[in-house]
Formats: sequence, C-alpha cells, structure tokens
Amino acid sequence: MQARIIDGKKASEELNQETAIEVANLARSHNLQPGLAVVLIGDDHASSVYVNMKAKKTIELGIYSEKIVLDKNAAADEVLQVIARLNKNPKIHGILVQSPPPPQMDESLIVRAINPAKDVDCFHPVNVGKLLLGENDGFYPCTPYGIMILLEKNGIDTVGKHCVIIGRSNIVGKPMMALLVQKEKGANATVTVCHSMTKNISDHTRRADIVIAAIGKAEFLKVDMIKDGAVVVDVGINRIEDSKSPKGYRIVGDVAFEEVARKASWITPVPGGVGPMTIAALMRNTLKACKLQNNING
Amino acid sequence: MQARIIDGKKASEELNQETAIEVANLARSHNLQPGLAVVLIGDDHASSVYVNMKAKKTIELGIYSEKIVLDKNAAADEVLQVIARLNKNPKIHGILVQSPPPPQMDESLIVRAINPAKDVDCFHPVNVGKLLLGENDGFYPCTPYGIMILLEKNGIDTVGKHCVIIGRSNIVGKPMMALLVQKEKGANATVTVCHSMTKNISDHTRRADIVIAAIGKAEFLKVDMIKDGAVVVDVGINRIEDSKSPKGYRIVGDVAFEEVARKASWITPVPGGVGPMTIAALMRNTLKACKLQNNING
Repeated sequence: MQARIIDGKKASEELNQETAIEVANLARSHNLQPGLAVVLIGDDHASSVYVNMKAKKTIELGIYSEKIVLDKNAAADEVLQVIARLNKNPKIHGILVQSPPPPQMDESLIVRAINPAKDVDCFHPVNVGKLLLGENDGFYPCTPYGIMILLEKNGIDTVGKHCVIIGRSNIVGKPMMALLVQKEKGANATVTVCHSMTKNISDHTRRADIVIAAIGKAEFLKVDMIKDGAVVVDVGINRIEDSKSPKGYRIVGDVAFEEVARKASWITPVPGGVGPMTIAALMRNTLKACKLQNNING
Repeated sequence: MQARIIDGKKASEELNQETAIEVANLARSHNLQPGLAVVLIGDDHASSVYVNMKAKKTIELGIYSEKIVLDKNAAADEVLQVIARLNKNPKIHGILVQSPPPPQMDESLIVRAINPAKDVDCFHPVNVGKLLLGENDGFYPCTPYGIMILLEKNGIDTVGKHCVIIGRSNIVGKPMMALLVQKEKGANATVTVCHSMTKNISDHTRRADIVIAAIGKAEFLKVDMIKDGAVVVDVGINRIEDSKSPKGYRIVGDVAFEEVARKASWITPVPGGVGPMTIAALMRNTLKACKLQNNING
C-alpha cells in the first residue's frame, strides 16, 4: 500500500480562495478591509523570508498589509510602543510579532501587550484559555488550526479516532491537543500527548489512528512506529546535511517520509503539507479578527 | 493485592496546616491577611452546604471570609455589580461565584467579570491560558491542583507515567491534562484524554499507570478496565439509590471501589479522597492571590 498524499498546497489554495471571496464580500457589504501588521525585530534571514511570504499572501487576498521592521537592538519599550500604536489603529485587525524576538526581550511581555482581539497568532493567554475552554470568540493558533482544516478538506474525520501528538510545544503540541479533544464538530478525538519524557513513544504511536509529529527531530517517526493505514501529519521542518544538494543541505520533516508512506493511508509531505496551511490559517484569523472587531457574525 | 488508600483527608489537613502557617507568617511579616469572598446566588441546598464548608475552612486557617448571598432571581447586573465591588475591595484577594448560576445568567459573563488576579477558581480564560502555557503567575483549578498535591504528598511520581483521564470537563478533565503534560517538576506525564466519544475506553485505561476518573458516572471504572498495580484517582461524586440507607441513597465515585481496590496499587476513596483536597487547594490559591497582589514572592 502506498499512502495518499495530503496536499497542503492545494488545500491552502482552496482556503485562501474562500478567504479572498469573503474579504471581497466584506468590502461590498460593510466597506471594510481586514488589516494585518507584522512586526519584525532584527534582520534574521529566515524570519525575514517568512514575514515577506505572509505580507505577499495578505495582499494577494485583498487584506491590508503593514510591515514594521525594527533594529535588532531595539529596546523593549520601543517594541511595546509600536504594539500600543497598532492596538489603537482601526485599520489593523491582526498583529503579529515575528518570533523569536532578540534575547534582550521577554517574549511573554510582548505577547501580553498585544490586544487579545488582535492576537491572530493566538499567543496571548486569554486566547489560549478560550481555546482550551472551547469558547469560540478567540483565535486558534495557526499551525494546529491549519492542520484541522487540512484534515477536514481531505475528508479525514477525527471523531472517536485516537490521535497521538508527539511534542508539547506552546505553538503546536498543546494547542493541537486542545483543539482535537473538544466536544465540537470536526474534533471529538481521543488524544494522547507524548514528549521527551515519554517512555517508548512507539508504544503510543503504534496504536494511533492519526499521528501528528511535532517534535523537531529530523525523520524521527519511522515505519515501525505506526500501524497499518494510519494517517500521518508531519509538522517538522529540519535541515539535514546533503552533499548532493547545491546548498549542502535539504529540508526534511519529523517523519521518515518514504518508508512511512508505504504503510500509512494518508501522509503530509514536507514541504507542501502543513506549512502552506499555517499561513492560510493566519489569513482566516485576520478575517475573523476584522469581523469580531466590527460585530459582524459569520 | 489490596490497594493502599490515598488519604485525602490526611493530605488536606497537612496542606491546610502549611497554609495556616504561611497565613500567620504573612500577618507578622507584612501585616496582611488573605481574604476570600464567596458569592452564592439562590438557596440551592447543596451549593449552600458547600459554600459554608469553604467559609468555615477559610476562617479556620486565618483567612478573612466574606459570604454574599443573592436572591435566586437576582438580575445579572446585580451580580456584576457585586463582583465589581469585590474586584476593588483590597481586603478581598480571591472571589468565587458558586456554580452553577441560575438559568437567567450567562456563566461565562460572570466568570469574565472577575478580576483575573482574584480568580482563585481559575475559570477566567486568561488563567486557563496561563495554565496551558505553563506560566506560573496565574492559578490552577482547585480539583486538578488538589489531585497533583495529593499524588505528590503520597510519593506517587507522574514523570514519564502514562496518565489516562476519563472526562473532558472544563473544571477537571481539560485542566488536569494541561497540568500533567507540562515540562515541570511533578508533572511530565504522557497524557491521554478519553470521553463520551472515545471508542472502547478500557483499551486506554488498561494501559494506564495512573487513571483519573472524572466522567460523572457512578462506579463506571471496573476492575477489568485497569492493569495490575495502577494508581486510581476518583473524582466522581454520584448519588445512587440505597434502600438500606436512612436517606434512601448513598454517595459513590466514578470507580467501583471494592473491586478496583483489589487490583490497583493506590486508590482514592469517595468520600475522603479528592474532595477535601479541592477546598485545601482553594485556600492555597487565596494565599497565592494575596501574595501576587502585594508583590510578595514565594
């Protein structure tokens, strides 16, 4: 058996198209344009590439985009002032500060300074709390939210399924657990979370209907760690040395793709799986933020 | 084999004694007294008994206690005004509104009106979010927090253990999962959450090192659902008919105690297990709230 590919590029294009249509409708019905501000501190190349990708997608979908680049030695106060200004700016409905911030800044201070209503990354405790409580007037963190939509768009039901998450980060593992366990349509899974302190991770993954690998270790999940026909979602983005590549490295996920694909029923590739969904989910959150801030339902 | 009893009464007395000592120290060192206000809406007998138990324990430990009883037909506005007044009252460090509120009130509106710094029940989304994120300047919900202390006081380590929680309520199941999964001393468990949509709950519970039953079904967990030597924590409080009892009923937990006790290594009784820990944890939270509001460490 060869697994079917869960095509994140295709699903994200569909989702982005839906978002673009709703953005256009919002302009017609309410004369409103969602706006997203991205704050970049320093000139880290990878962060910069990522921020530019987000800005480009924003504009493509008809969303207003603002990019603020601060010096890498910027004082925390300066960042907080920028955030305070964006919090008040009615053209901006979503704010994100590209992480990680430079070492002189306390990330939790920055996160807590963002108006929760504009916290489209869902990093603020109040939004994380709403997520766990199952309240729907907050946001869902972009990567887990993107995965939920990706599964749904491929007709992969999670109800009553045993989902095993590898990794307990605040960005993926924990919010993924919170989303999957809810008593909500498209969730309702039995959830297990494994991590660095778990004994014999494969004892858990081998029993899973759906495995979500988010542990940040290149090709960690091997074929003997899953059961026949499992669905495998790969959140990892790791560089490994590759002398054959002109760059000297290549990008792999947390899953040993080729061998696992021979046993799984569905699998996400890296790249082209979860990655594009994360940005598409961010666009949904920006649209939602605009609607919530203007008391528009639906 | 006969399980050892996890004595919640004894552990709660120890914990309460520790709290009383700290309260006395706080009076000496800072001339401060922690204060807890309990708001009761209506005259529901069970709620009233519970509120009185809390108030009595508060006074016993040297904590200032205030009880506000409102008419069961009180308007939501009236409740919100009472909360607003307590939010401002410097003698009050913790506020709880005995749930469930009467049907005319939106519980989430009441919860969100409480100043998060005084939310000793940990119902406010911002505190729930801090809990999931692993930030320690909020509170832990009293029942799961009480269970963590109960395990610790009995030398039952959770690190690397597989904990299976039955139930996904906002009061027990979900926060229990959040506490156990953290990368923190006394947590670090591999966690599985089962619920009404889980297929074959016993497939999961039979593999667990620690089972936490919080599903609200009388004697749900039977002996054939656990493995030899498992630790069993029973959160349930259920009435079942009993013609031999003068009241016509008796209280049982979510665990079929007698049979499960023959196979488990440790088990909590009902009553006298988790119950007393919940109130003792509330007292800890009130003390913590007082310290946080006065910028006192430790």
